[in-house]
Amino acid sequence: MNILVQKYGGSSVADGQRLKAVARRIIRAKEAGYRVVAVVSAQGDTTDELLGKAKEISQSPPKRELDMLLSTGEQISIALLAMAIAEGGHGVISLTGAQGGICTDSLYTRAKILRVDPARVKKELYDERIVIVAGFQGINDLGDITTLGRGGSDTTAVALAAALDAAACEIYTDVDGVYTADPRLVQTARKLDEISHGEMLELASLGAGILQPRAVELAAAWGVTIHVRSSFSYSLGTLVKGDDLMEKQRVVSGVTRDMNVVKVMLVDVPDRPGVAHKIFSTLAADGINVDMIVQTTKQGPVTDLLFTICQDDYALTRRLIEQLRDELGIADVLYNDRLAKVSIVGAGMMSNPGVAAAMFGTLAENGINIEVISTSEIKVSCLIGADRVESAVKAIHDRFRLGEELPV
Amino acid sequence: MNILVQKYGGSSVADGQRLKAVARRIIRAKEAGYRVVAVVSAQGDTTDELLGKAKEISQSPPKRELDMLLSTGEQISIALLAMAIAEGGHGVISLTGAQGGICTDSLYTRAKILRVDPARVKKELYDERIVIVAGFQGINDLGDITTLGRGGSDTTAVALAAALDAAACEIYTDVDGVYTADPRLVQTARKLDEISHGEMLELASLGAGILQPRAVELAAAWGVTIHVRSSFSYSLGTLVKGDDLMEKQRVVSGVTRDMNVVKVMLVDVPDRPGVAHKIFSTLAADGINVDMIVQTTKQGPVTDLLFTICQDDYALTRRLIEQLRDELGIADVLYNDRLAKVSIVGAGMMSNPGVAAAMFGTLAENGINIEVISTSEIKVSCLIGADRVESAVKAIHDRFRLGEELPV
Repeated sequence: MNILVQKYGGSSVADGQRLKAVARRIIRAKEAGYRVVAVVSAQGDTTDELLGKAKEISQSPPKRELDMLLSTGEQISIALLAMAIAEGGHGVISLTGAQGGICTDSLYTRAKILRVDPARVKKELYDERIVIVAGFQGINDLGDITTLGRGGSDTTAVALAAALDAAACEIYTDVDGVYTADPRLVQTARKLDEISHGEMLELASLGAGILQPRAVELAAAWGVTIHVRSSFSYSLGTLVKGDDLMEKQRVVSGVTRDMNVVKVMLVDVPDRPGVAHKIFSTLAADGINVDMIVQTTKQGPVTDLLFTICQDDYALTRRLIEQLRDELGIADVLYNDRLAKVSIVGAGMMSNPGVAAAMFGTLAENGINIEVISTSEIKVSCLIGADRVESAVKAIHDRFRLGEELPV
Repeated sequence: MNILVQKYGGSSVADGQRLKAVARRIIRAKEAGYRVVAVVSAQGDTTDELLGKAKEISQSPPKRELDMLLSTGEQISIALLAMAIAEGGHGVISLTGAQGGICTDSLYTRAKILRVDPARVKKELYDERIVIVAGFQGINDLGDITTLGRGGSDTTAVALAAALDAAACEIYTDVDGVYTADPRLVQTARKLDEISHGEMLELASLGAGILQPRAVELAAAWGVTIHVRSSFSYSLGTLVKGDDLMEKQRVVSGVTRDMNVVKVMLVDVPDRPGVAHKIFSTLAADGINVDMIVQTTKQGPVTDLLFTICQDDYALTRRLIEQLRDELGIADVLYNDRLAKVSIVGAGMMSNPGVAAAMFGTLAENGINIEVISTSEIKVSCLIGADRVESAVKAIHDRFRLGEELPV
């Protein structure tokens, strides 16, 4: 079967008009000869509204019950979308995550997909029906409803595409693909035709906000090619593929920024074993994600320790660090939330020395001071002043000629 | 196990405050030593809001998808109620109709319960958890969600009480029991301590609006005693029991009225076989419930045929009858929607001749003209002018001394 998996986010199905537009798009794919499986998120603000209802009752509701509650959001979407497609005269059926065979572990609110049992979906496709599956949700071995956490619908789509051996997995967003930089910032930013899973992963983690990192990870693991495209046009978007599929590679594929960053600087931390572990395990226990970590060697028995966190975690981090400060004998703590992270990503970086240096040089030429540097095999990130981030992105985009097409 | 099944309607769980009050009531029953199963409806106007969303998409959505949509209403309620109980420090779990083992046929939007598989509910009760089950919904043999139609939550509660062999089945409403007449109308109306299933069924069908007829039918079939009581007080309500449990019986248990009635009079209907069948099967095919039917014999080859319908079905009935009129050669059709039905109900009527006569006499003494009469074994109904219904109810209530306690 020539199966096409499509995923539509919450804003694509926010109201009756948009649902009807999505229905037309799905019908068009069906009429083009595909067997279509559409994965749908909850409408617009539904999830927030449901969370509001829960908050009224309890500040820390049982997570199983939270999943029971939140999963209704997608169930409403799939029913309404199936109605819109039926109204267009096509055979259609909606399936909850459980009915769609999305089997997960029991980590409520952030469950992982263990396996997909596609029997029901296949049967319905075989019966010539369009199948609408609720994203973001699954069922555990107890028969209880779970949710997959942030970006769960992308993950559902990728998992179904893998299980069904789909011809393609299209993820519809409100942008028409992955760009070399934010087009609102850089006029010459160019849409990429292709990008590797690894590069997309770095871009996603770095705040490009198009695909959820977990979905990209799974796509890489299961060899699923994702087509990121706009729900507002029919033009081609960007293919997110396995590295081996890439015919030619740029050294740098894109440049990105992340404004959601706070620098924490612990001054004169006692330089003895176990101190760093104590600090970072305390933060991790409260779910705080620490990003760049830099330790500076000093003269004597102390070091400076620097790391970055999200702005959402700022208040909680401050509280935790203050508690640790006396216990560990840290001299001083400095915070800076007027910073931003600018990064370049590219699978070709590994084999091209000098890329990082070129980035640092470009920043220096533009008089932009670098606070912290961190690198991975396919990424270089620099923490700079938030007020300089736009000119930094533009300068780097120009430096690596990202606005130009590659010669064929 | 000493199991108590409680059912709370949509108005009892309409908002956070009410949900918390229901949680306290459930916890109180648990602390009194019961294993509690609470069946809950959708919050307040949720079902209407969901229907509104569907209407925006389609005027006649597939019923399976309507059930997929509507069942989210109860799912939201059970999750929130479980959160409220957990907040009170008690072990609790919410179960959808499917998880609660409510197995139905596949008549979407009006499914019938085929059987209850109480294994999961029993396991959770055994583990000392309070169990919250979504009313109104079940699962069919395909694994698809069904809804039970109007009054479905009452039916869920009765079915669970039967399957669990519960000590009691409490149905909470906004009134504190079943009265001999509408207390807003008759000051001397008295709350009944007990009433038989059969009497309750007649009262329910006649518009007393406290318990749904289907739930009472099932309670009668499965021998479940229902305790109808108020969610706003802790006083005892009315027990709806099997006839054999009744120690003593009144001849008449209550008097009720129904304003939702339209009289249709077909004048000079050809008196030949199959005509009545044609008329009533046409109405039935469109789901129109016909109540009182009276055929008057005339001189010659014609008869007059009279019946009553609900006001909701008035427009549709008119349209259908107009279509039949020429086909069948009916001379004239008269409609009257300024009528009301007043009825007396009592299991003791069967063995007490003269009850109907006493009712007719009371109406006559008060100058109230009777348009149509219909009777069953435990009920007598008279169609009268809508403007006279209040005085009719009061006079009948006095005549049968319904305001007085029975001598012990």
